[in-house]
Amino acid sequence: MMKEYPMRVELEEAVQIIKEKVTVMNTERVALSEARGRILARQIVAQENVPPFDRSPYDGFAFRAEDLAQASKEHPVTLRIIEEVPAGKAPEHSVGRGEAIKILTGAPIPKGADAVERYEVTEFNEKEVTFFEPIKSGSNICLAGEDVRQGEILMETGIKLDNARLGLLAALGYSEISCYRRIRCVMISTGSELVPVDHPLAPGKIRNSSAYMIQAALREWGMECDIYGIVSDNSNHIAGAIDVCSQNYDVIFTTGGVSVGDYDFLNQSLEELDAEILLWKVKMKPGMAFVAAMHKQKLVLGLSGNPSAAAATLYLIGGAVLSYMSGKQELPWEKIKVRMSHDFPKSSKGRRFIPGKLCVINGEAYLDSSAVQGNGILSSWHSCNLIGEIPGGTPPLKAGNVIEAYYFV
Amino acid sequence: MMKEYPMRVELEEAVQIIKEKVTVMNTERVALSEARGRILARQIVAQENVPPFDRSPYDGFAFRAEDLAQASKEHPVTLRIIEEVPAGKAPEHSVGRGEAIKILTGAPIPKGADAVERYEVTEFNEKEVTFFEPIKSGSNICLAGEDVRQGEILMETGIKLDNARLGLLAALGYSEISCYRRIRCVMISTGSELVPVDHPLAPGKIRNSSAYMIQAALREWGMECDIYGIVSDNSNHIAGAIDVCSQNYDVIFTTGGVSVGDYDFLNQSLEELDAEILLWKVKMKPGMAFVAAMHKQKLVLGLSGNPSAAAATLYLIGGAVLSYMSGKQELPWEKIKVRMSHDFPKSSKGRRFIPGKLCVINGEAYLDSSAVQGNGILSSWHSCNLIGEIPGGTPPLKAGNVIEAYYFV
Repeated sequence: MMKEYPMRVELEEAVQIIKEKVTVMNTERVALSEARGRILARQIVAQENVPPFDRSPYDGFAFRAEDLAQASKEHPVTLRIIEEVPAGKAPEHSVGRGEAIKILTGAPIPKGADAVERYEVTEFNEKEVTFFEPIKSGSNICLAGEDVRQGEILMETGIKLDNARLGLLAALGYSEISCYRRIRCVMISTGSELVPVDHPLAPGKIRNSSAYMIQAALREWGMECDIYGIVSDNSNHIAGAIDVCSQNYDVIFTTGGVSVGDYDFLNQSLEELDAEILLWKVKMKPGMAFVAAMHKQKLVLGLSGNPSAAAATLYLIGGAVLSYMSGKQELPWEKIKVRMSHDFPKSSKGRRFIPGKLCVINGEAYLDSSAVQGNGILSSWHSCNLIGEIPGGTPPLKAGNVIEAYYFV
Repeated sequence: MMKEYPMRVELEEAVQIIKEKVTVMNTERVALSEARGRILARQIVAQENVPPFDRSPYDGFAFRAEDLAQASKEHPVTLRIIEEVPAGKAPEHSVGRGEAIKILTGAPIPKGADAVERYEVTEFNEKEVTFFEPIKSGSNICLAGEDVRQGEILMETGIKLDNARLGLLAALGYSEISCYRRIRCVMISTGSELVPVDHPLAPGKIRNSSAYMIQAALREWGMECDIYGIVSDNSNHIAGAIDVCSQNYDVIFTTGGVSVGDYDFLNQSLEELDAEILLWKVKMKPGMAFVAAMHKQKLVLGLSGNPSAAAATLYLIGGAVLSYMSGKQELPWEKIKVRMSHDFPKSSKGRRFIPGKLCVINGEAYLDSSAVQGNGILSSWHSCNLIGEIPGGTPPLKAGNVIEAYYFV
């Protein structure tokens, strides 16, 4: 029994339809050292100042600036050293008039002191230090809370933990962090023409290449991804593979069998499983062949057997949906305006996407689409971090023309 | 006994001095599924065409284009179906005059055929297929070698394996790839003011935050990095830590103890070890405090205890040196021209670097330096992929001014 579902939808519609069916991952505690690239699952409000106290940016002397008001080369001012503070200790004394405390880079500013001068511009022995110029009150003091003020909302739920954020969390004492669980993906390759990568090629056969590209892209985005293997064009076998994977994975990717021919088995297998097909075919080139379904509450994304079409839907639909499921607050791309680096000699009847790389020439942003443009051409996805969009009904484009593009950051 | 070594060198000089002492990693075989981000250790020459044969981009019929020369809606042409090729098989017959073979997307083009037409624009039953318009010879045929031509140099030694390259290697049958071994780094934090991240803060103490930032950055660049822990300001202890790490790691990072004060222990510990100090101090801000040394043929990079200064030398010196050691042929950045997103209100006596993020506004590239600029300010390194350079002797800059920048790709 065939069911009804939207067909030939716009990209944005496809993302919306799928997002309504999926849920954001659960959360888990992650050790700080393992949290790079993870998505924060709670708001972080600073419980302390960073740095926690006013401190010195230099090895030097702390004192009262007014004591040096009249200091000059001709009339140097000498202060008495009342304490020398070792690294990692706080000063024990307050600085009074005519006194100085010797401190190290990062040491707390002693009470009473309102300025610090570096060793290099003084003369000193164990008992006394001499200054040759005045200094303003507040000089060479890094204030408590300069990096982070206590009570400040430091990070919002849904941000990605990068190097500097991990450093800040460490400074605030977080040895574990609440993050969304990583999405577990699996990649099922369908097609009787496919052989494993380490097999020789019989006539009519090609190797299973898309699986490795998709796995690498998903891992780059912070997902887990296993390669299930190759399932021949047999809807029972494909159904069995999807069903077993639904027990162990959050998202099941397939390639192949989503087009229009007699041998397009993926949709048959989804019907067999009584899966809920969400949509079939998207109005984009490459990437028309695409199906999304839910099976036992797991998402099935059926990509084209054509590597470039698979990549286009993986980046533009998969990217948005997985980003949402991963708990991220933002899309994985920013839309920007860029110039074409090369002519694009074809007219675009429908909406078309061109993979490439952001490059900057003389301060201007370009879509570097120097790799051959073509439907079977994996090479064009090398180092892809920018996908140009050509609206339907656009004539051939010239190098230098401005287009909109999806910048993956 | 003090030895002589260069001091206060330029950034480029520092990179050059260190590169002359280090060597590129050995190579190892890496499984395709684990090779993402790895550096290729040999040239790849394609031993086969990709795709390996002329094939059909559609489910449809293959035939001789000249048979359809007179086809029209009024005078359709009907051909006899002599074979139906299942997925993954090669056609057994040649196509003669008046004949067609039914083939699937990705199937090899049968001998004798020089064009393919899609199912959708034909009418057909099991025995015959009818066409309503002519078609050019060569239509709808993806040529063998369209992606990769046999004999072509596909990848050079020293490139980074990305998603699309892994896909191509799979297509060519590489289940394992020769890559440079990943660099094993370790991070030793020195300073008696430091406490572990999960400890409470006593007066004068701060938490060990830089270690996590540096670990995350190194891992993002594809290195391994362990955190050794905190060593107090005791040159014997620091020397011991460096010595033991030299047995297990390729590169030993330290933070702290590289400045000018009485308590700068790193250099003392290097002298104790009789390590070869390569240089001390670099003419850049932040990042002046920096030392490089060789100990038992392992590289020691001593970064500042100040997180922002540590980050600057990590990115600009460490980035270049590690990139070289990792076998990469290129620097980790491209130099580009960008505009400042914000005023920079300080004059720059010496050479200054400003961390930020590349953003594109209306087709123009900007250094987004919106995070507070300051020396202790880790926040300014959030999501850093662009470091602006201000030459020495530059007055304050205005938003919109053009500067040179290091774009980390």
